[in-house]
Amino acid sequence: MKEHDMQITLSTTKKEKPQADQLEFGKQFTDHMFIMDYTQGQGWHDPRIVPYQPLSLEPSAMIFHYGQSVFEGLKAYATPEDEIILFRPEKNFQRLNSSNSRLCIPDVDVDFALKALKTLISVDKDWVPQAEGTSLYIRPFIIATEPYLGVSPSNKYQFIIIMSPVGSYYKEGIHPVKIAVESAFTRAVNGGTGEAKTGGNYASSLKAQEVSEKMGYAQVLWLDGVEKKYIEEVGSMNVFFKINGEIITPALNGSILPGITRDSIIELLKHWGLPVSERRISMEEVHEAYKLGHLEEAFGTGTAAVISPIGEFLWNGEEMLVQSGETGELSRKLYDTLTGVQTGKVADELNWTTKVEEKVTQ
Amino acid sequence: MKEHDMQITLSTTKKEKPQADQLEFGKQFTDHMFIMDYTQGQGWHDPRIVPYQPLSLEPSAMIFHYGQSVFEGLKAYATPEDEIILFRPEKNFQRLNSSNSRLCIPDVDVDFALKALKTLISVDKDWVPQAEGTSLYIRPFIIATEPYLGVSPSNKYQFIIIMSPVGSYYKEGIHPVKIAVESAFTRAVNGGTGEAKTGGNYASSLKAQEVSEKMGYAQVLWLDGVEKKYIEEVGSMNVFFKINGEIITPALNGSILPGITRDSIIELLKHWGLPVSERRISMEEVHEAYKLGHLEEAFGTGTAAVISPIGEFLWNGEEMLVQSGETGELSRKLYDTLTGVQTGKVADELNWTTKVEEKVTQ
Repeated sequence: MKEHDMQITLSTTKKEKPQADQLEFGKQFTDHMFIMDYTQGQGWHDPRIVPYQPLSLEPSAMIFHYGQSVFEGLKAYATPEDEIILFRPEKNFQRLNSSNSRLCIPDVDVDFALKALKTLISVDKDWVPQAEGTSLYIRPFIIATEPYLGVSPSNKYQFIIIMSPVGSYYKEGIHPVKIAVESAFTRAVNGGTGEAKTGGNYASSLKAQEVSEKMGYAQVLWLDGVEKKYIEEVGSMNVFFKINGEIITPALNGSILPGITRDSIIELLKHWGLPVSERRISMEEVHEAYKLGHLEEAFGTGTAAVISPIGEFLWNGEEMLVQSGETGELSRKLYDTLTGVQTGKVADELNWTTKVEEKVTQ
Repeated sequence: MKEHDMQITLSTTKKEKPQADQLEFGKQFTDHMFIMDYTQGQGWHDPRIVPYQPLSLEPSAMIFHYGQSVFEGLKAYATPEDEIILFRPEKNFQRLNSSNSRLCIPDVDVDFALKALKTLISVDKDWVPQAEGTSLYIRPFIIATEPYLGVSPSNKYQFIIIMSPVGSYYKEGIHPVKIAVESAFTRAVNGGTGEAKTGGNYASSLKAQEVSEKMGYAQVLWLDGVEKKYIEEVGSMNVFFKINGEIITPALNGSILPGITRDSIIELLKHWGLPVSERRISMEEVHEAYKLGHLEEAFGTGTAAVISPIGEFLWNGEEMLVQSGETGELSRKLYDTLTGVQTGKVADELNWTTKVEEKVTQ
């Protein structure tokens, strides 16, 4: 499929854009959206940009019953030179295909998807906010649309991209959160869907999150589903620890989401010549380090927050304070560097950003 | 909420009903559907029966992203006396609420849901097929509809019931299937969503099913996610074994769906005075029994097939034949009794069926 196959129908009305200080995550959407259909035997077809509008689906559409869906999340940023850039967007579409494979959903063409995204951003380029800390959040997703109640892979899908201008994750500057180690609920287990970005993983996480919030904690730390011993993720983020100078993140084991921010941090730490390990790490090891005064920093990583410093862990009834509850030096340096590269304010030494062509191909 | 709060809008056109021999599972739907909305702060509201029609939802509706959904499956049957009966329908709505609790979805009123269902069936009573082995399959489901990309429980939901006339599961009489014991993929783990009827469990199962079908097996047998040793379910059914006279089914452990057919079979076996155990059972125990010639029968149980005899297990490369691949005496007796009770042809000694009032409350 080629870019010129894409139909573009422009909206006749334009929505009012929210003020920079009124931006909320994922509640306001741009004027247009991208849609492409899949039909078994025909493949992906009819890529199009259309005015942002409701989806009309049969009540028997499989997405409503058997959860066959995948999604991605990435951001476009306005640079000081008024260019629009994306951060490693090909990684998102590659991961979308990994998720597709696990969920029995047909692959999309990564190059075509990226071109379609760039065209969509060009059409809605006035929606990329420019204020400090703001960005355009991009949500590609695929849903099973065949109207059939049999439990089997759908023979029809829609691939959709919607976009939402979002404010700074940290309205009052980066600050640490309190995390409760989860002992009752399980996020994922080997052989399950933990490494795929699919709705069921998030639905499954809501209950633990609800319980931890009632206890005054921002997120839960997920342990492995087998031994309830090894650290997997924190909330819907990957997690890093700095212990006695070594920076450690759980190795990808099939049940951990291969985060793009996670990967970027590993690359960046290597680029800086700092010791970084992807390995199994238990909560006991973290606790031992804490007792010895070696637990120097801890932080979550993801597209939304980029870096989310952890100021406290609650584990087995014990409150473990990290960095006296303050943001550590490494966390801050990683946050400043990554957000700097993402917004074109810091030199992109690892060649991670991609400029969006502003020519609308109509 | 009371039954008389329900608005009924009848369809002005009637679809043509399929012939009994052309009924396919879950592809054709009746003329009407039930919908009720939930809004945080207001509760469930606006219950209504409307012509069967597409759902219109924002592309940011949470169901498309984070899989917050639950569903049920049950059947209505026409009796030889031309009455319409349901089989333990209150159990389905009770289980819907158990699933709701796990998925952070608000409860529905079981009595009201049952009344709404009966009214819907009355409106579409001509759709209940009468031929031998046919029934009206009923699919209640709840989806998160808030247009918001934050990972949190939705503040809006829709509870919908759709209905589909279905043919006999066994077009050529009840017959055994071949089952491959799954070693790579995991259906569910303790602390996950295995005991809830939610989309993610089914999405997660598709890959293993695809692999086993390519190998010539109808379904997979799921082992526990921790030790990969103990038997949990088969395909999307519960599973029973008859070993040396004892009838065994895995005990409900948090990751196994509490099937209503499963429960009915346990009750029926007790009623008959047969030895039935709910307990942990490993694949090794089944294999040991097989080698000793004590593996007398095995069968899956669920709403669609009722009883699905198992004629062969593939485990660690070994093909284990059960009952020489034929349907066992107990499997057949359970099938005949349960389907007999469900269709009003066998005395309902355990008081399981409920008559649908035919008065349409308009």
